[in-house]
Amino acid sequence: MTKITPQSQKLRALLNTNSMSFVCGVHDALSAKIAMEAGFSSLWASGLGISATAGVRDCNELSWSQVLDVVGLMNDAVDVPIIVDGDQGYGDFNNVRRFIRKLSERGLAGVSLEDKVFPKHNSFALGAQELVTIEEFCGKIKAAKDSQLHDEFCLFARTEALVAGFSVQEAVLRAKSYADAGADAVIVHSKKKDIEEIVSFLREWNDPTPVVIIPTTYYNYTPQQFEQLGVRMVVWANQLLRATITATQRTAIEIFKSSSIAHLEKDYVSVQEIFRLQNEDELHLATRKYQRGSGK
Amino acid sequence: MTKITPQSQKLRALLNTNSMSFVCGVHDALSAKIAMEAGFSSLWASGLGISATAGVRDCNELSWSQVLDVVGLMNDAVDVPIIVDGDQGYGDFNNVRRFIRKLSERGLAGVSLEDKVFPKHNSFALGAQELVTIEEFCGKIKAAKDSQLHDEFCLFARTEALVAGFSVQEAVLRAKSYADAGADAVIVHSKKKDIEEIVSFLREWNDPTPVVIIPTTYYNYTPQQFEQLGVRMVVWANQLLRATITATQRTAIEIFKSSSIAHLEKDYVSVQEIFRLQNEDELHLATRKYQRGSGK
Amino acid sequence: MTKITPQSQKLRALLNTNSMSFVCGVHDALSAKIAMEAGFSSLWASGLGISATAGVRDCNELSWSQVLDVVGLMNDAVDVPIIVDGDQGYGDFNNVRRFIRKLSERGLAGVSLEDKVFPKHNSFALGAQELVTIEEFCGKIKAAKDSQLHDEFCLFARTEALVAGFSVQEAVLRAKSYADAGADAVIVHSKKKDIEEIVSFLREWNDPTPVVIIPTTYYNYTPQQFEQLGVRMVVWANQLLRATITATQRTAIEIFKSSSIAHLEKDYVSVQEIFRLQNEDELHLATRKYQRGSGK
Amino acid sequence: MTKITPQSQKLRALLNTNSMSFVCGVHDALSAKIAMEAGFSSLWASGLGISATAGVRDCNELSWSQVLDVVGLMNDAVDVPIIVDGDQGYGDFNNVRRFIRKLSERGLAGVSLEDKVFPKHNSFALGAQELVTIEEFCGKIKAAKDSQLHDEFCLFARTEALVAGFSVQEAVLRAKSYADAGADAVIVHSKKKDIEEIVSFLREWNDPTPVVIIPTTYYNYTPQQFEQLGVRMVVWANQLLRATITATQRTAIEIFKSSSIAHLEKDYVSVQEIFRLQNEDELHLATRKYQRGSGK
Repeated sequence: MTKITPQSQKLRALLNTNSMSFVCGVHDALSAKIAMEAGFSSLWASGLGISATAGVRDCNELSWSQVLDVVGLMNDAVDVPIIVDGDQGYGDFNNVRRFIRKLSERGLAGVSLEDKVFPKHNSFALGAQELVTIEEFCGKIKAAKDSQLHDEFCLFARTEALVAGFSVQEAVLRAKSYADAGADAVIVHSKKKDIEEIVSFLREWNDPTPVVIIPTTYYNYTPQQFEQLGVRMVVWANQLLRATITATQRTAIEIFKSSSIAHLEKDYVSVQEIFRLQNEDELHLATRKYQRGSGK
Repeated sequence: MTKITPQSQKLRALLNTNSMSFVCGVHDALSAKIAMEAGFSSLWASGLGISATAGVRDCNELSWSQVLDVVGLMNDAVDVPIIVDGDQGYGDFNNVRRFIRKLSERGLAGVSLEDKVFPKHNSFALGAQELVTIEEFCGKIKAAKDSQLHDEFCLFARTEALVAGFSVQEAVLRAKSYADAGADAVIVHSKKKDIEEIVSFLREWNDPTPVVIIPTTYYNYTPQQFEQLGVRMVVWANQLLRATITATQRTAIEIFKSSSIAHLEKDYVSVQEIFRLQNEDELHLATRKYQRGSGK
Repeated sequence: MTKITPQSQKLRALLNTNSMSFVCGVHDALSAKIAMEAGFSSLWASGLGISATAGVRDCNELSWSQVLDVVGLMNDAVDVPIIVDGDQGYGDFNNVRRFIRKLSERGLAGVSLEDKVFPKHNSFALGAQELVTIEEFCGKIKAAKDSQLHDEFCLFARTEALVAGFSVQEAVLRAKSYADAGADAVIVHSKKKDIEEIVSFLREWNDPTPVVIIPTTYYNYTPQQFEQLGVRMVVWANQLLRATITATQRTAIEIFKSSSIAHLEKDYVSVQEIFRLQNEDELHLATRKYQRGSGK
Repeated sequence: MTKITPQSQKLRALLNTNSMSFVCGVHDALSAKIAMEAGFSSLWASGLGISATAGVRDCNELSWSQVLDVVGLMNDAVDVPIIVDGDQGYGDFNNVRRFIRKLSERGLAGVSLEDKVFPKHNSFALGAQELVTIEEFCGKIKAAKDSQLHDEFCLFARTEALVAGFSVQEAVLRAKSYADAGADAVIVHSKKKDIEEIVSFLREWNDPTPVVIIPTTYYNYTPQQFEQLGVRMVVWANQLLRATITATQRTAIEIFKSSSIAHLEKDYVSVQEIFRLQNEDELHLATRKYQRGSGK
């Protein structure tokens, strides 16, 4: 008999070890399964990725229930924990409560909530970033923790203080307040090309709550360098999406130009590999098991 | 003022010309936009692609309303007509009516309906394919045509006779019946590696209704060879999806193995290219236009 | 062949006459059809009603896409225009744009947008009401008008100034600004038990833009009294919902107490009346028309 | 901390007692809450009711995912177990698997699956009812039981043999086969005005699996008469819906005719009662708890 797989327990275990792990950003159920098969022990359901895949912008153009449907499909497809990029929780503390309850009901392992206003703008987009007060965000954290349906569900509190132009001190103050309010981990985000603000942040961080980073702009470091900083998780948030775009653009242009696919067949997987990723084999077994006598 | 773009008119124009065109299969709004930018004048919203992206199988595991939500997002993202792979219409004639009404309401240009039972299996999957009677399918075609909300909406009637192991004569008989019942185009599908059944079909086809093919297995032909057959449209149904899988697998494995992305940065597009595809610039213009006085 | 019924044209015609009309608040497709059959020429898709029916609160606990799904079903069920209670548009001007585009795509006739913050609270609920600035709301109105897909789609700009405790002068200033920004009608809302604020508002209103009222609390007036005020539409926003609750409570309690329904059978409609409301007859006609040869 | 309420445990307890209980049919979250408040210990999420409320017919015009969304909202609103009227499971054994997995994930307590084809027709509608073979339906039952995410989830196997015109012997044979295949209870349905077929069925029933009836047409019996038959549950499937329609029709007609609501105010609940049903008080407590410092 199938049971709810306790993905949140696995995620909590990753947070509670001393070793650093890498989290792979994914944008749909297919990329989630591929990242899991590649070896990643946890996934990041990227807000940028989910919105880009849906053809909309990363400023809450998708409703929370549309995002929920996508991450639900992701979770069904994999056997590793998913951290949902939940933006600011799509409104106030009460919207947060509903969202967290539904995420945990669907079996998602954890969520990231950030201290920006609703609607948000992507952290790397042009324009100023507006933050809510520490008090307001701590209220949201408490509301979230009181709403989860599983004890082990993990809340990642993300401060956008550095992205919004505030000091490292402000970022530390915020992150510390969020940890005190009940966050299971903190994410400190930066859009600098070098790692200096993150180094400073971690130097001042003297709390047992694990710290997570998302080095989209300051990618040019070795795993050892990240490990020495003392971070618990490193999120590669959008690289699979970007590789997908590159491949789709190149292939689409090549097919259009040549009006033929004959020369491309060797460059991509077979239809059978799609079927394998869809778990087609299981259907054949199940058909034999359950469809006796149906005349098919 | 924005208006409903008459995508179905564009699709009908493509069907009514004498020249053959290529249709690019897409699986989400992002791939749809990329295919449009590459130059394709029409798109195929692939059932295999939509199900694979959602992490489920291509046997009606997604409900018709879930498919509707995906193709609605696709349609919002592009300015070229989309032909929706509508399987068998998700049930009987009455389910077809509801589905067609909703597709045309959302502005989709056309739909493909096939003569298989519900639930279906993918044409390239193992196992027998079961067809409905000609009479039943003609009833569905009439029901569909009576339900569309725009006159120009295009119904592609697809026969799976060859895939199900029937003769070319049966396929012609079926396709001819479907055209007589009101289909705007017929699709004849084959899973052979060579083109012989398709050649035979087209030799016997003496109806003005345009014929469409999907050469997934018999891909090894030149555009000239397809054109000489007299087909109106050639659908590259799943190549972008397969290229996407290849790129995602390679990138995920490489990132996991090396625990670093530094050496990969040159291999994929920038975050700014994601923003461009999301139409981020339009938001900045709109913000200036509409957000005066909002204090932001 | 079925066509999009131009419900927005009918709504605009109602706004452009000199005579006052009554609008019936409804909360699902069933109540919408019943209100239409009772004779109402336009309907109000009540936010309170939709949320109550869904078992949630009227403070944006439902996402905009969940509301869209409900009002889409309503619109499919009736042949009279529906004004959607769209709250504040579920966010900023950009959220408004997406919501309005989708409402008009689904064939809804019009929308009410109000000058409250997101998330909102019901106007009759305890607690303070917070308004956005006039400038911000005018930006939303312009964004909405530029996003509708049909020329005749009607935007009702609703000021909650009186509900929030501001003066009649502030309400007039706001409503006038909203009309100048492009609103097709203005709604002035009050939660007083007497009509005095509304009388004062209308005395100071010297703009050709039609005025709409929602006399939930100041219900104790005759149609003639409303007409003399010069309002164009009177919305009975939640009376059907309240009658529904009363009947459901009484019936549920009676069935539970008596453990029998025998004595109640005469008090409610037959199952056949449900079928009639569902348009069951049309299915039988359609089955004969479309299901020849299906073996059923 | 909130936990998943084990509604399926409560439902199983009701099935495992010796005493008969009454189940109240509901059609949305609001009627579910009202039925719970009236005292019912379990609810029936009526397929007829859900479709009628949505303005569509009871022949699978709603997709399984649309039904899932409605019953999810119902379940959130109550603290008693809900049995979902799941029709035939919306397709074959594989569609059943997906539907059952999702129902149990959302916390629903149980489901009724019936031995009709897809799409179905309502049991009281005109026209013949087509059944699947016993073997096919037993396969679906096994598939359902293997897919549930909670051990206590209850499957009610419903035979429509009597409704389809078959003998009591066929109904018993089918019900017995379904019990053997793993059903937790069987439902025997009849559309006769008298109870004779049901009496005959129960006389021949010698299996420990509980039997459930839905006396929509043969309502004219006392609780004692039902109890003597040996049934475990009696479902009042659609009476609340019918009372709702009666009240809505009367109120809508009265308001339309009189163009006034003044004389009706005493006939229905206050707006405050709507708020109470929506749990408005909890929001005020939560606001005080979580919104300190948000400036509101």
